[in-house]
Amino acid sequence: MADSETNLDALARLRVVLVAPQHPGNIGAAARAMKVMGLSDLALVTPRRFPAAEAAARASGADDVLAAAQVHATLQEAIADCVLAIGTSARARHTVWPLLDARDAAQEAVTRAQPGQKVALVFGRERSGLTNEELDHCRIHLCIPTNPDYASLNLAAAVQVVGYELRMAAGAGMPVVPTEQPVAVADMEGLYEHWAEVLTASGYYDPDEPKLLMRRLRRLFNRAAPDRTELNILRGALRSLDPRRK
Amino acid sequence: MADSETNLDALARLRVVLVAPQHPGNIGAAARAMKVMGLSDLALVTPRRFPAAEAAARASGADDVLAAAQVHATLQEAIADCVLAIGTSARARHTVWPLLDARDAAQEAVTRAQPGQKVALVFGRERSGLTNEELDHCRIHLCIPTNPDYASLNLAAAVQVVGYELRMAAGAGMPVVPTEQPVAVADMEGLYEHWAEVLTASGYYDPDEPKLLMRRLRRLFNRAAPDRTELNILRGALRSLDPRRK
Repeated sequence: MADSETNLDALARLRVVLVAPQHPGNIGAAARAMKVMGLSDLALVTPRRFPAAEAAARASGADDVLAAAQVHATLQEAIADCVLAIGTSARARHTVWPLLDARDAAQEAVTRAQPGQKVALVFGRERSGLTNEELDHCRIHLCIPTNPDYASLNLAAAVQVVGYELRMAAGAGMPVVPTEQPVAVADMEGLYEHWAEVLTASGYYDPDEPKLLMRRLRRLFNRAAPDRTELNILRGALRSLDPRRK
Repeated sequence: MADSETNLDALARLRVVLVAPQHPGNIGAAARAMKVMGLSDLALVTPRRFPAAEAAARASGADDVLAAAQVHATLQEAIADCVLAIGTSARARHTVWPLLDARDAAQEAVTRAQPGQKVALVFGRERSGLTNEELDHCRIHLCIPTNPDYASLNLAAAVQVVGYELRMAAGAGMPVVPTEQPVAVADMEGLYEHWAEVLTASGYYDPDEPKLLMRRLRRLFNRAAPDRTELNILRGALRSLDPRRK
C-alpha cells in the first residue's frame, strides 16, 4: 500500500446518501461516523426534519459535514453526478444487480472513484430500508453480514461499518508502522529465488518442469505483502531449512 | 468458507470486555452492536453505573446480552479464563506487543478461539481508553484506522467495527469463490504447527524461547489467506524441507 495518499484521496469522492431519514439524531450520528472514517460528502433525500438540534448534538464535532450536507427531493437527483450508486440492503434479496458484501462493495467503490468520478453509497430508512424502486437506481447492492436472529443494525452503525470498509479499501490498513523499512520488488524477487533454490535442493521443485509452483508462491506472498521483519523471518527460516546447509 | 457454521460457532467464545465505562447508555449500545454481529459474552470491569435504565433503553432488543453481563472488579479477573486478550487502542503506541489492525486482530481472535478457548476483546474508557498497565495484560493490541484529524470513534461504534470484523473473520462474508475448496481454521493451525515443527528441527525456532516468531508467521499467513491449493503447496514444501526427513 505504498500509494496510500492517492488512495485516501478517493474518500473525498465518495458520497453518503441517506434516503428519508426519520430521526434527525441519526443524521448527526451518521455524520460523525463518516468523519471518523474521513468521509465528508453527505446528501439527504427528503429528511423528515433537517436541520435540527438533535442532528447537531449527535454530530459531536462533525458539524462541518452536517453544514455541507445537500438536501434533495429525490434519490435520482442526489446521485445524478455519480458514476456509480451502491445501495445498502439489510438482507440478501433476489435482484438483477450484483450483491456484494460490504468489503467487496467498498473495494469496488474506491476503485471506481477515480479523479472526477463520484460514487454514492445509499442508505435507506431506519425501519424499512430502501424500496425496490430505489434499489433499482443502484447498480450494485451491498449487504452487511449480521446475525440472522437480530439484524438490528441502526443507520449510523451501518454508515460506520461501510465507512470503515471504505477507509480500509482506500489503504488505511496496518502497514502503519512508519519506522518499518519498505520492501522493494527486488527483495521480493530475492525471496522467490530463495524459495526456488531450497525447493530445488529438496527435490520439491523441478526448474525444468516448473508447472505452476513458483507462480502460486509468488501470488501467495505478493498477496501477503510481507514487511521487512516478516521477510527477514522467511529468509532466515529458508536458510535454516536449506538441505545444502550441511 | 463452506465451513462457516463451525467458524460462526467461534463467536460464542469471544468476550467483549468494557473497562470502566462511564455512561450506562454506551453499555447498552455496545450490547446491541455485539448482538447484531452474533456476539453474546459481555464483561464489565468497574462500570460507573450498572445495571441502569439507560443501558436497557439503548440495548433495544439486546437485553439478553445485558442480563448475562458479568461485572468484575479488575481486568485480570475479567480475562482470567481467556487464552488471549486483545486490547483496543485508538492510536499506534510503541509497545512490546504486536499491533494489528482490526482485520488482522479479528482473524487472530477467531483462529485462537478454538473449542474450550475463550478470547477477550478489551475496550477502554470512553475518553481515555485503556491505561498502559491494562494494555500490558493484552498480548495483542488492536488499532482501528481512523481519520487522524478526527479520531472520535465512540465506544459502541468501536465495538460495532470490531464485532463486524469478528463476524467477517468467522466467515460471514459473501462466498466469493464457491468452487475453491475451503480452508478451515484447523487447516491453518496445521500449517502453523508444521512451520513450528520444521523450524524447531532446523534450530531456527526455540519453543522454550518463542519470542514473536510464530505470531509473526501467523499474522503473515492469516493476511495471505491461502486457498486450498496454496496450503497444499506450503505443506508439501515444508515436508520436503523437513530436516528430520533423512
